[in-house]
Amino acid sequence: MVRTVALENGKVKLIDQRKLPLYLEYKTCGNYKEVAEAIRDMAVRGAPAIGATAAYGMVLAAREFMGLGKEEFLSSLLAASRELAATRPTAVNLFWALREIEQVINEHRADNIEAICRSILETAEKIAGDDIETNKKIGEYGNTLVPRDANILTHCNTGSLATVEFGTALGVIRAAHGDGKSIHVYADETRPRLQGARLTAWELVQEGIPATLIPDSAAGTLMRQGRIDLVLVGADRIALNGDTANKIGTYSVAVLAKENNVPFYVAAPTTTIDFMIDTGEQIEIEERDRSEVTHIDGVQIAPDGIGVYNPAFDVTPAEYITAIITEKGVVGYPYEEKLRNLKV
Amino acid sequence: MVRTVALENGKVKLIDQRKLPLYLEYKTCGNYKEVAEAIRDMAVRGAPAIGATAAYGMVLAAREFMGLGKEEFLSSLLAASRELAATRPTAVNLFWALREIEQVINEHRADNIEAICRSILETAEKIAGDDIETNKKIGEYGNTLVPRDANILTHCNTGSLATVEFGTALGVIRAAHGDGKSIHVYADETRPRLQGARLTAWELVQEGIPATLIPDSAAGTLMRQGRIDLVLVGADRIALNGDTANKIGTYSVAVLAKENNVPFYVAAPTTTIDFMIDTGEQIEIEERDRSEVTHIDGVQIAPDGIGVYNPAFDVTPAEYITAIITEKGVVGYPYEEKLRNLKV
Repeated sequence: MVRTVALENGKVKLIDQRKLPLYLEYKTCGNYKEVAEAIRDMAVRGAPAIGATAAYGMVLAAREFMGLGKEEFLSSLLAASRELAATRPTAVNLFWALREIEQVINEHRADNIEAICRSILETAEKIAGDDIETNKKIGEYGNTLVPRDANILTHCNTGSLATVEFGTALGVIRAAHGDGKSIHVYADETRPRLQGARLTAWELVQEGIPATLIPDSAAGTLMRQGRIDLVLVGADRIALNGDTANKIGTYSVAVLAKENNVPFYVAAPTTTIDFMIDTGEQIEIEERDRSEVTHIDGVQIAPDGIGVYNPAFDVTPAEYITAIITEKGVVGYPYEEKLRNLKV
Repeated sequence: MVRTVALENGKVKLIDQRKLPLYLEYKTCGNYKEVAEAIRDMAVRGAPAIGATAAYGMVLAAREFMGLGKEEFLSSLLAASRELAATRPTAVNLFWALREIEQVINEHRADNIEAICRSILETAEKIAGDDIETNKKIGEYGNTLVPRDANILTHCNTGSLATVEFGTALGVIRAAHGDGKSIHVYADETRPRLQGARLTAWELVQEGIPATLIPDSAAGTLMRQGRIDLVLVGADRIALNGDTANKIGTYSVAVLAKENNVPFYVAAPTTTIDFMIDTGEQIEIEERDRSEVTHIDGVQIAPDGIGVYNPAFDVTPAEYITAIITEKGVVGYPYEEKLRNLKV
């Protein structure tokens, strides 16, 4: 288990995920602009990890502006927050974490500058600490669904690297492994960005959890051969009825699981539930650049002139999801009332 | 439309498909061992193309052994045939083509060596010529199933490059396009070897057929959005009950098609039908090297120490297949009696 992002000796230290799986390199950001750059250039990725990183970026911004007068200090902080928010267009946790920090600044604007800095630091550490605690609870609840001997299929990366430290779906796997269960993980490589091959496989090797990497298209035949006992995936956004937006390919895995009577579980914190939307129909699907499909690490694999469709996510209808695992417990289909009850 | 393999100036000339889509390069094999190597290393791939290539390989073997005594000539030929047969385990056309050649050798074993060589040459040219004719008939029959406006999903490469010249599933697409129908092709990239991205996309761009390349995992969401009217795939081996072995991922596409009420068609010559096996259970699935999953063009994308499962094919049960398109007509589920009737 690695700590993806932390505050260390007054600097933000994060794993440069672009170097994985070949090199575990840390990037140290001495000021908030470097933090913004790390998010923009995807040295750090994964919605919860991005949120915590941005919060830490605000800690650095506050220290950088300490020498200014109070009004200038506050307006510079707001400008820094906007700069950090502009790094990635769709990461909900990024905006949420920055809103938390801004709210604390507002509540403490009568305090002296040092006290405001302290409040920002406390909030950032709380955001990161809460993420770890939430993930561990998801792991505990999820573990109750994992048999003592289990072959588990997962898609994309939902581990330490996507969060501050523990992971969501991969956190459940970590918890089951830590509990002494005999588990074996099949990791979809997850084209086009290969988060399964690059990140999930790396985490599993690091922890000595028995694991096998497969092309996404081999998941179905494994299920038909009876070699998968359950599927565990994360979520980017969950509608009130349980429809779940997640990495492209999740829907296919869900359909194949249903066809082969394999339980299909979504593991996600309740912050992933969007209480403003009723169904997945309302979730807009982001399309990413064609080069993710036509090139791999700069190597061209498709001819010039071919059209490309590259959706980042798909929506899995609730009826394919056996249960949703949150830090507040496990809920089963149908979801609407149960998810509503999870709202604080 | 390109000619994938031919006999030219006493040598076997084939397109080195590993160089596409960036370079159209030909490889020339001067002896049968080089032909075996080209099949084993997948310079040539696609079941019908492999069959014709192996037959041409036997032409070279016969010429290489011409200086031997009759008995040694015949036994060396048999050994060469076994060597060629051992290059790939799943492609039934490979074994079929070599059996045809062996049968001709047997029928002519009383002839002199030169006459036997001539018979082998004639048979090899007939196998290649028949493949082209057969594909064109598959195209004609398949075209009757394609609406005038159609979005067609295909998997792997089943075009000129998979056959001697015309193609099976992509041959149907070629025929429909040639017939003036307004078609649009969605091509699965087909990990791990990316035949869709490298070969199918290349053929479609070459012919000006409107086409879009997608990651394999995006096929499901396209079907759910109602954007696919039919699926067309090829086959590596068809059991008597219609169970079909084809490129890994075909089974997933079939399940997703069924779930979304999209017709799923297999296009293949009757030589792909293995009349010796009753069901897909009896089909051996070739597993290929882990490096196909961990590396792309020499670039490492997965960590050392991770396990890999890399099956080349999967088996799609007959009940997912709406119809099988052959050069002798279109047959629908259930298949056993109808396929038996196709046997010459």
